[in-house]
Amino acid sequence: MSVTPVVLCGGGGTRLWPRSRRSCPKPFQPLLGPRTLFQRTLDRLADPARFGQPIIVAGSVHAELVADQLDRPATLMIEPAARSTAPAIALAAHAVDATTVLLVCPSDHHIADDAAFADAVAQAERLAQEGWLVSLGIAPTAPETGYGYIRRGAPLAHGFVIDSFVEKPDLARATAFLADGAHFWNGGIFAFMAGRFLEELQAFRPHMAGAVAESMAAAARGASVIRPAAAPFSTISGESIDYAVMENTTRAAVVPVAMGWSDIGSWSALQDARPSDADGNSVCGAPAELVDCRNVMVDSDGPRVAVVGLEDAIIVVDGNDVLVTSRAHAQQVGALAAQARS
Amino acid sequence: MSVTPVVLCGGGGTRLWPRSRRSCPKPFQPLLGPRTLFQRTLDRLADPARFGQPIIVAGSVHAELVADQLDRPATLMIEPAARSTAPAIALAAHAVDATTVLLVCPSDHHIADDAAFADAVAQAERLAQEGWLVSLGIAPTAPETGYGYIRRGAPLAHGFVIDSFVEKPDLARATAFLADGAHFWNGGIFAFMAGRFLEELQAFRPHMAGAVAESMAAAARGASVIRPAAAPFSTISGESIDYAVMENTTRAAVVPVAMGWSDIGSWSALQDARPSDADGNSVCGAPAELVDCRNVMVDSDGPRVAVVGLEDAIIVVDGNDVLVTSRAHAQQVGALAAQARS
Repeated sequence: MSVTPVVLCGGGGTRLWPRSRRSCPKPFQPLLGPRTLFQRTLDRLADPARFGQPIIVAGSVHAELVADQLDRPATLMIEPAARSTAPAIALAAHAVDATTVLLVCPSDHHIADDAAFADAVAQAERLAQEGWLVSLGIAPTAPETGYGYIRRGAPLAHGFVIDSFVEKPDLARATAFLADGAHFWNGGIFAFMAGRFLEELQAFRPHMAGAVAESMAAAARGASVIRPAAAPFSTISGESIDYAVMENTTRAAVVPVAMGWSDIGSWSALQDARPSDADGNSVCGAPAELVDCRNVMVDSDGPRVAVVGLEDAIIVVDGNDVLVTSRAHAQQVGALAAQARS
Repeated sequence: MSVTPVVLCGGGGTRLWPRSRRSCPKPFQPLLGPRTLFQRTLDRLADPARFGQPIIVAGSVHAELVADQLDRPATLMIEPAARSTAPAIALAAHAVDATTVLLVCPSDHHIADDAAFADAVAQAERLAQEGWLVSLGIAPTAPETGYGYIRRGAPLAHGFVIDSFVEKPDLARATAFLADGAHFWNGGIFAFMAGRFLEELQAFRPHMAGAVAESMAAAARGASVIRPAAAPFSTISGESIDYAVMENTTRAAVVPVAMGWSDIGSWSALQDARPSDADGNSVCGAPAELVDCRNVMVDSDGPRVAVVGLEDAIIVVDGNDVLVTSRAHAQQVGALAAQARS
């Protein structure tokens, strides 16, 4: 038995400006080590005994980046338009047999513990084969208010029924979730049989299901590239798999996992995922000189950076842009004028 | 009557790295407005009714910078070697008549109130004509521990006898000095007749006086450039005018003045001298975007800088170098590895 990875390459990563830009967004940047987040995602799905040839879903503007960074056979599914995750996954589901188990993975996350990931995927695969639509539930490590949570229900042989999805909580609820052990972050990693997903989509979003089917019926198919037709696809309203399917189906399951997961949602999250020295400082790229600094991250693509007497600061140099922020304010980088983030 | 300005161009300004560098140090940088500190120094000494043609004392490595930035007739005195201020001033004193009043000015300071400066110079000139060696005493505006102080003694018609020079005090003493009104910062601005200076130098530093005289006797003299002979000059031990002359003579006087003076001794001092907006932020050079910032200074020679959520931070971009520091740590910039300051 094998699983077909579906790697989703949407998402702008505006909070990682100036490294992540419209022209080369977050998944295609080597933010952790020499390989890009996209390549690292594929590396986790490379065991031929367990994984089939992956399907990469990406917009046409990123097709060249995908092709450049791919170093194994894959099917490239060109999204005719950005319509969030549910339609993107549905395109992939049409490219395989109904009984094929798909493993949907974002292309811009970090997973520190590959073995834990592999174990969780194996559990999820078993549940998917029984007809469940499975979400990997990330064991929370902090009272995060920026994530959606999954509350587990009755136990299954390889996970739990999902009791409910919880919208981003306030700090008090997030703290309670962290303590009770029954809540997990929704990390956007899913497993299900392709046919089961399409059945549920048909049940809850019939227009979307129909438009995707039409788009795929009229697709231009090359040796390794599928270009679904644009016209039907453009009639779809963008919607996430969570809203369109997972929160509606009665067959949602969760496999809890602790695997050092991060969505690398900001420069401070990236700093946490990078190695640091005894003072908590980390330097990436060009050499930097840090004097009297603590918990400072420097990432420069060329210029030398000298930092004197700062704490909890983040400095990024990319091309003609310099970003200076603090760990506490790193989330606000996405709020910089779009003009500055070009 | 007129005064001959002597403008000293020594000093590296290492604490203003990366803008100030060995190749183009602090005096020759446009740190406040479009004209360099050197040019602004000469601008203060430009009234032909009051000032004669200035003498610029500089090392040979900076002769080209001086020539490029000069926009009026001047005599360029090339220091054969860097030997601190006493020998440099003695060279200039040999280039004029003994009764000429010299006004010695550093080339890298900021004076906000030109009228107060002019008034103080007029007072100092009168005292100099009476044979006094005069120091302008900057009225302190903060309990600075990084400056030498001058304690005033008996009053004179145009100033005070200097009671004593006080080495850099600790904070308690500096606070007392600020309160008592009898102590002034030694800002390195002096007035005296050339002959009186050379007499006192002869009395207290006979070797230095003799070596300078020899060096000037064998000088190569062009239309506007004087190149004192190197061999005698090189035998001199470097010493400041304060140690060599002012602290020894019995004819030292001080003219107190409040003129918005700053030695621009660090990026935070420069920040204080620059205009800022309602949030205390100041941007110089290339455009910058500041979000949720207070008392942040950005100075970039090209790259765009975005700052998010910082307070009391200083960011300087120059060529291939980026400096990030805090107002509290700006003094430490000079401690960066010499290699980084190249």
